[in-house]
Amino acid sequence: MRFQQPESLSEQIAQHLGRLIITGQMQPKERIQELKVVADLDVSRGSVREALLLLERRHLIEIFPRKGAVVSDLTPENIAALYDVYATLLVMLASKIASLWEGTRLMPLLDQIQKINTITLDQDSTAEAIVESGFELMQMCLEIVDNPYLEEVLINLRPAVSRTYYLAIRSHRDELVQSLKFYNGLFKAVEDRDMAGIKLVIESFSEHQKELLLKVLADGSAVAEAG
Amino acid sequence: MRFQQPESLSEQIAQHLGRLIITGQMQPKERIQELKVVADLDVSRGSVREALLLLERRHLIEIFPRKGAVVSDLTPENIAALYDVYATLLVMLASKIASLWEGTRLMPLLDQIQKINTITLDQDSTAEAIVESGFELMQMCLEIVDNPYLEEVLINLRPAVSRTYYLAIRSHRDELVQSLKFYNGLFKAVEDRDMAGIKLVIESFSEHQKELLLKVLADGSAVAEAG
Repeated sequence: MRFQQPESLSEQIAQHLGRLIITGQMQPKERIQELKVVADLDVSRGSVREALLLLERRHLIEIFPRKGAVVSDLTPENIAALYDVYATLLVMLASKIASLWEGTRLMPLLDQIQKINTITLDQDSTAEAIVESGFELMQMCLEIVDNPYLEEVLINLRPAVSRTYYLAIRSHRDELVQSLKFYNGLFKAVEDRDMAGIKLVIESFSEHQKELLLKVLADGSAVAEAG
Repeated sequence: MRFQQPESLSEQIAQHLGRLIITGQMQPKERIQELKVVADLDVSRGSVREALLLLERRHLIEIFPRKGAVVSDLTPENIAALYDVYATLLVMLASKIASLWEGTRLMPLLDQIQKINTITLDQDSTAEAIVESGFELMQMCLEIVDNPYLEEVLINLRPAVSRTYYLAIRSHRDELVQSLKFYNGLFKAVEDRDMAGIKLVIESFSEHQKELLLKVLADGSAVAEAG
């Protein structure tokens, strides 16, 4: 688990800022003032710059030479682009599990899916608990597949994907039942080693998420325009 | 072109060290001494630390908390893992081109493939010129597809892939004809919008490269053991 080692100062700063962006407390296109972060958190400028590089790697900010850092924008185009890459890599991950699993190896994954079901259906669960339970499943799969390049790419995409999940859950919590159908359908396809089924289940869910998010963005602009 | 903007000092340091690793002048598992780089290049410690984060992002080094940085190892397992992810993303890239192209849009790509053919068949070409001509084609495709996530992931994998290309060219230059067959076959499949063909061509080439590299690594260890 890459980010569960004792964390460096720059990693702690990155996680603090990352959380503000992911949960929507920092807005798309908002400027991040390096010196303000230095003063607010009482840390060195070098640590803040390292933290900004980590956030750039996680697609949460963009850094412009000699201009500084801004929170990445959320547009229909970049949501579609993100989900296209993410779905492609999830298909790879799930297909590897399908071709590798033997005996009782899938049992912990099924347990985790049951945990996701319970958390999602509990009205008292926080958005964070729901999002985390899904990523725990991904992490379990990554440990089985043991490909450090795939792991790094997916872990770097995770914050950007989280950001879209939070956005979707905030406005359409009722849609969460779709994600349960997704996990259950995906498990069945992996268990059956049904490669075409894996691709279909992941791509359909990805399309569903994209549509939902475009709706949320459109409603957001409508509200902004009306206000 | 992300890395052709006027480069920051840390980017310049990263490119300098990256080049030593990619071309085999720094060996797998070699330790990188932060303070030695500071002294050798007469730069600040902060810039070197930023450069090391960039190199970690490009899979050329690993950074261990409180232990420092070492050049990533080249093992059969990590070469296989790298090519699995790389091939998956190239299939995505080529499939997007196949579904997008219209009219004369493929002409510049065909011109570039002819350039690759010429450079590769010229015995006087440097390994660098051959490797670069291939990545120029990838860059042209990335500009057509215009997916910033895919671009970042592929650009971050590029140095690790380059490193394996240099290793292969140094020991088996005669094998380069395989890569020409690959480019020509891939172009044909993209032109025909033959999605199954795209997958087959890329996966076959990836398997060929893996086998070649495993042979090179095995020969290397044999030499090391004999010496």
